[in-house]
Amino acid sequence: MKITKYPAKEDYAKLMSRPAKDAGELNAIVCGVLNDIRKRGDEAVREYEERFDKVALTELQVSETEMAEAETLISQELKDALEHAHRNIEAFHRAQQFEGVTLEVQAGVTCSQKSVAIERVGLYIPGGTAPLFSTVLMLATPAKIAGCKEIVLCTPPAKDGSVNPAILMAARIAGVSKIFKIGGVQAIGAMAYGTESVPKVYKIFGPGNQYVMCAKQNVSLHDVAIDMPAGPSEVCVLADETSNETFVAADLLSQAEHGIDSQVILITNSEAFAEKVEQEVERQLNVLPRMEIARKALENSHLIVVKDYEEMMMLSNMYAPEHLIIETQNYHELALQVTNAGSVFMGSYTPESAGDYASGTNHTLPTSGYATAYSGVNLDSFVRKITFQEITAEGVKGIAHTVELMAENELLDAHCNAMRVRRLSVEC
Amino acid sequence: MKITKYPAKEDYAKLMSRPAKDAGELNAIVCGVLNDIRKRGDEAVREYEERFDKVALTELQVSETEMAEAETLISQELKDALEHAHRNIEAFHRAQQFEGVTLEVQAGVTCSQKSVAIERVGLYIPGGTAPLFSTVLMLATPAKIAGCKEIVLCTPPAKDGSVNPAILMAARIAGVSKIFKIGGVQAIGAMAYGTESVPKVYKIFGPGNQYVMCAKQNVSLHDVAIDMPAGPSEVCVLADETSNETFVAADLLSQAEHGIDSQVILITNSEAFAEKVEQEVERQLNVLPRMEIARKALENSHLIVVKDYEEMMMLSNMYAPEHLIIETQNYHELALQVTNAGSVFMGSYTPESAGDYASGTNHTLPTSGYATAYSGVNLDSFVRKITFQEITAEGVKGIAHTVELMAENELLDAHCNAMRVRRLSVEC
Repeated sequence: MKITKYPAKEDYAKLMSRPAKDAGELNAIVCGVLNDIRKRGDEAVREYEERFDKVALTELQVSETEMAEAETLISQELKDALEHAHRNIEAFHRAQQFEGVTLEVQAGVTCSQKSVAIERVGLYIPGGTAPLFSTVLMLATPAKIAGCKEIVLCTPPAKDGSVNPAILMAARIAGVSKIFKIGGVQAIGAMAYGTESVPKVYKIFGPGNQYVMCAKQNVSLHDVAIDMPAGPSEVCVLADETSNETFVAADLLSQAEHGIDSQVILITNSEAFAEKVEQEVERQLNVLPRMEIARKALENSHLIVVKDYEEMMMLSNMYAPEHLIIETQNYHELALQVTNAGSVFMGSYTPESAGDYASGTNHTLPTSGYATAYSGVNLDSFVRKITFQEITAEGVKGIAHTVELMAENELLDAHCNAMRVRRLSVEC
Repeated sequence: MKITKYPAKEDYAKLMSRPAKDAGELNAIVCGVLNDIRKRGDEAVREYEERFDKVALTELQVSETEMAEAETLISQELKDALEHAHRNIEAFHRAQQFEGVTLEVQAGVTCSQKSVAIERVGLYIPGGTAPLFSTVLMLATPAKIAGCKEIVLCTPPAKDGSVNPAILMAARIAGVSKIFKIGGVQAIGAMAYGTESVPKVYKIFGPGNQYVMCAKQNVSLHDVAIDMPAGPSEVCVLADETSNETFVAADLLSQAEHGIDSQVILITNSEAFAEKVEQEVERQLNVLPRMEIARKALENSHLIVVKDYEEMMMLSNMYAPEHLIIETQNYHELALQVTNAGSVFMGSYTPESAGDYASGTNHTLPTSGYATAYSGVNLDSFVRKITFQEITAEGVKGIAHTVELMAENELLDAHCNAMRVRRLSVEC
């Protein structure tokens, strides 16, 4: 890892920039597959599954028999762990429930706001090297609490047509309605447009490779909402001379092992600490199974030494990290100054991996600086807040003049008239 | 208007479909302008202002002198109306404030969620036939309540370089920080990328023509968040034989006058009432200044007669209207059954125009069926909900096993290790 000492303020933006990506040629391939799914439905889905996942499927939906079998395939220990994580995620997301607001803003004019679940949501769970059953819990649990009527999950099958049993088990625990063996762009298309087998959903959630992300962005232009745009995962750690270098190095590596494009950043006000972390990272790295991936990711990463806590927070807020771990002595104080971050881990005993799995917060978070404008997935992500208003005859008398005058001045006469006919009727 | 009587359920989807749009060729033009703004900043902005708005600007930002002058140009009556509307909008959006949630999910594991304002937001206010000062109030008021530090507004100037004084007045009342005389695609580009004059913002709000919408969607792919995708405005009215046909016709027309692509729909369980409305629309239409626009819009519109209230709600929820006015006798009961809508107007005395201007609810709402997945603009639109977690030594003992086991099973060893080093340290 590179140590950068005392960068000048005018170099902050460059230092904290993420590696650029070119998504040009990708888009044409993705649009081709999406169009095909839209036109030919299940038939096209099956062809792409054969081409990309190397599996010939007769039935796309996971059966009750397969669900029951999955339960016998995973250990009681892992089942207990899934249930423990689910309990915490459920408790914290249930605490986010919105009770509604009602306010009589002036006599006879009452407004209210009510939370209503999105009726049908789609969850995408990637396959690949690691079976992300934790993401199943993170997405399906709040969907269920919100009251979504249909929770559809797509995940690519193995070459033998099976789905990882831990994914199926997590889906059962969290309350997924229907699971389909579909991966990649074809899964996003199937959920966005609907096919003979797969219900059309209104919002699609979940991670994926660059093809999946590109597909999500494309369908979000017209057909369906998505959770958020996404890039590679990242962590920013703030530490000082009181921090534990073993913990900090472990935190940096836990992010670096995600993928070669992951980005990890340490910001500290202690040169000596930065050097200790550098050595400790090297030591821990050598025993990691995913050492090669982590080593590549560390090449895009920085150990940055700054003057004081103020610069630390300025740099961190400018970076807007997906995960922010604050391991300084004064971590409570710094946490209050966070303006841009996805999720914040406070103190020495709170590794990112706790939130990745089981602390109760969501791990689907804004990357690539999107934390400046987007929240991570939370209960709100699965509802709409619909407003209601009711005006009485008295309310009409109190509000009509303002409405009519504003409508007239916006040159919208029929808007004015809709208020006027009521006013005339109550004035009689 | 066409009356459709007792449609079969299998025809619901077709009946409620919106006119399709082709945005293909538009995209190339819009991307060209955006790229130019990104590369050349203010210089390009000025050139496009000259080309599209026919105005040569030396200074892009509205000056303090212009602001002061605007105040003298509008009537006290209109100023009072703006302040009245602002009071109601402020009261209702302030009531939406999120106090935060903190929960100890298990001993020693505490999660919290805090609302943090988006630091810089951009508001776009179209010019064109009507000066939409009401939209200034609708967007800037919640931005101010949320605590956004910089609230930038762009609006196209008239050919003489001036901005409508009611727009400036509304901006002052609602607390806009900086106003720029920039319209169309160049305004969206300037706020998304930043220029020498215009600060880069993190989220862009506001309506616009199809070029503006296309620009917003383009910049939302990588650079900035947007409020929501948008199409033509629309209303759905539910009425029965007890409803007032004068009110209902006025409501339909208040939407129809927006533009020739507006869509208005009446769903009723009374044939006789549908016929009365048909006649009343014709009568009111003939005295409207925007008659020609409204007449065109009515060509895409429907009066639909259904069997009962159940079918009424089914059809309305399938349509997912931006505005839903329920003028039936049992309007409270039906309002409880709304699953898809932007904003709901209840009873005879609550025209859409009340909410368009002054009831307190927001008028920036999801069109084109997006109400299935999106909320209208509300206080949440201007904040992120950031999560925080803190684990104590006791918490580590209680959660480590689950985290380590899940990480191992996802084949993420460094994730496991970040928890393990803490557990080993507290077990000593």
